[in-house]
Amino acid sequence: MEPAIPEHLVTVRTRHRRVGAEYTPPYPCFVARHNPSVSQVVMAYFGLQFRPGRETAAAVPLAAIAQVFSEQDGPGHWDRARCTDEEGFVNVVSVAYWNDPARFQNWFAAHGAGWTENEPADAKLGFFTEILKPAVERYETLFSASDRAEGVAVIADGMSGMVREHAYWGGMRDRIPLSQTDAMEPAGAPRVVKERDRLRIIPQDNLCLIRSGQDWTDTEPEERRMYLEEVEPVLRSGMDFLRDEGLSCGCFANRYMQVIDVEGRPIEKSFGVSWWKSLSALERWSESHPTHVAIFGAAMKYLSSLGPAAKLRLYHEVTVAAADQQFFEYRNCHLKTGMLKAG
Amino acid sequence: MEPAIPEHLVTVRTRHRRVGAEYTPPYPCFVARHNPSVSQVVMAYFGLQFRPGRETAAAVPLAAIAQVFSEQDGPGHWDRARCTDEEGFVNVVSVAYWNDPARFQNWFAAHGAGWTENEPADAKLGFFTEILKPAVERYETLFSASDRAEGVAVIADGMSGMVREHAYWGGMRDRIPLSQTDAMEPAGAPRVVKERDRLRIIPQDNLCLIRSGQDWTDTEPEERRMYLEEVEPVLRSGMDFLRDEGLSCGCFANRYMQVIDVEGRPIEKSFGVSWWKSLSALERWSESHPTHVAIFGAAMKYLSSLGPAAKLRLYHEVTVAAADQQFFEYRNCHLKTGMLKAG
Repeated sequence: MEPAIPEHLVTVRTRHRRVGAEYTPPYPCFVARHNPSVSQVVMAYFGLQFRPGRETAAAVPLAAIAQVFSEQDGPGHWDRARCTDEEGFVNVVSVAYWNDPARFQNWFAAHGAGWTENEPADAKLGFFTEILKPAVERYETLFSASDRAEGVAVIADGMSGMVREHAYWGGMRDRIPLSQTDAMEPAGAPRVVKERDRLRIIPQDNLCLIRSGQDWTDTEPEERRMYLEEVEPVLRSGMDFLRDEGLSCGCFANRYMQVIDVEGRPIEKSFGVSWWKSLSALERWSESHPTHVAIFGAAMKYLSSLGPAAKLRLYHEVTVAAADQQFFEYRNCHLKTGMLKAG
Repeated sequence: MEPAIPEHLVTVRTRHRRVGAEYTPPYPCFVARHNPSVSQVVMAYFGLQFRPGRETAAAVPLAAIAQVFSEQDGPGHWDRARCTDEEGFVNVVSVAYWNDPARFQNWFAAHGAGWTENEPADAKLGFFTEILKPAVERYETLFSASDRAEGVAVIADGMSGMVREHAYWGGMRDRIPLSQTDAMEPAGAPRVVKERDRLRIIPQDNLCLIRSGQDWTDTEPEERRMYLEEVEPVLRSGMDFLRDEGLSCGCFANRYMQVIDVEGRPIEKSFGVSWWKSLSALERWSESHPTHVAIFGAAMKYLSSLGPAAKLRLYHEVTVAAADQQFFEYRNCHLKTGMLKAG
């Protein structure tokens, strides 16, 4: 059993962990471990938005960005997922990760900044770029199994052993190194500004992002049926609530996404990705909102009936970003897209 | 909205509240307010244990203690409740509260210490006395409505207005004044020792007691049906778990009790009363054990479907007692009675 915060990020605490020294979690979980030389990472969401039926037109920029991801200084890892949003548009998001902001900056200047220039507006394709560049003190990961990384963990050096700080409310905060000294309370409010033909966000401080994923590729038929029939509908209902009514509890935007391969075919993975006013708002929803209490109850029932035999994999990454670590740009997207709802 | 910790017990914090300054609870709750002159209270559980069928013999000591409660320096409030324990014995507990430990001491010396002397062992009546004498920094209360006090709140001066620190996991701890500076971690382990014909407990530090009650006297028929059919069975199942398997999660003992009037007739109130290794252990069970997640889910569903029209009243009191604030004595009781299970 090891602490979730790696030794090189341990500081003199001014704030306590939520659990005492005697705490041991009831089941194993793992976190991504970066080399101590990594001080900042980049999480970049390149989104494409279009009406159903325009898949052929959409294929062009999707192929283009996949190609430039492989150029010099491209991401250490990327994947792609799809959802239909509250306005009926398809959103395909290519999510890319770097462990070196300088290399990201080189790549972005050469290939990424042009994403929102891809097509003239009349092509009826919308483009958006949502980027966080958090210091490693500002995010945490959690994995139910240590042998398959997802998201930012793929660009880490590896996985920890079993960590102590999980399976209690507040573990998420306790795993973020900055929580040793900082309440990470939000400051300010996001504002939408227009620059030429696009919309940008003037950020608030301590915005929170969660990507929380499920992977049922390894499940046997009976477990797959249980997941898809008993858990997934409850999860979807909570995701729909956050998408449609999330503002009432501090969730600016939510996308419940189906992971797809490079040909656009769904694979047996999904994730929710949501933007929050604060880590506290995410904590409150997770802990006490009926929609998440239902998700938690369904997952607990599922996992306790299967025990260690469960093949479903769960993971998440949670980031609290300073204002100067955020970049949002939207072109030709409807006004309920991503952080535009926050402004 | 007011803080749960009264002004005269506010200290310079070395530990933070779990929620930030922006937090506001989604529904109202209230806490008991003592006069600032009250520095310590007494919570005394006088138990009688017997096989079903021995009610006539049991009536004698029950009448006797009810009588002495009305003597000089008797409790400011008491009530009585019954349960059947895991060994099939009936336990009738008279729960009494004082807001002045000196007056309690006078009364106890004259009338209370003799409780376990009441009957010779061969009368097949068991007697136990479980007493906490916490400083006011060491407990908290919570009420869903402010117009009917229960338990220790009856001996308080009144109720607060709506308080801030509730409806989140960790609110219980945040309402205990000592949490401003102390993690209240347990130290040591309870030990059972025999003294003449009775068993006593050498206490551990920071033992935790919760009394958590329900009052459905004011419910209309449809709400009463919902409570009794949809919530109560889930609550009972969690209470049974704590009684039978609580040691696995730090619960030494649990009694799920039906409140009775002085003639022994059930009234429409119940409470669970349980002894815990630590406040942390109680937190962990409440927040994540399937049995309590189920209770929480059932209560949330019930309350959210009824809204402010709900007439069910809920309350609790939670104490973290120092070793020198505890007294336990058992005579002629079976070895699974109360804190005997802890030793």
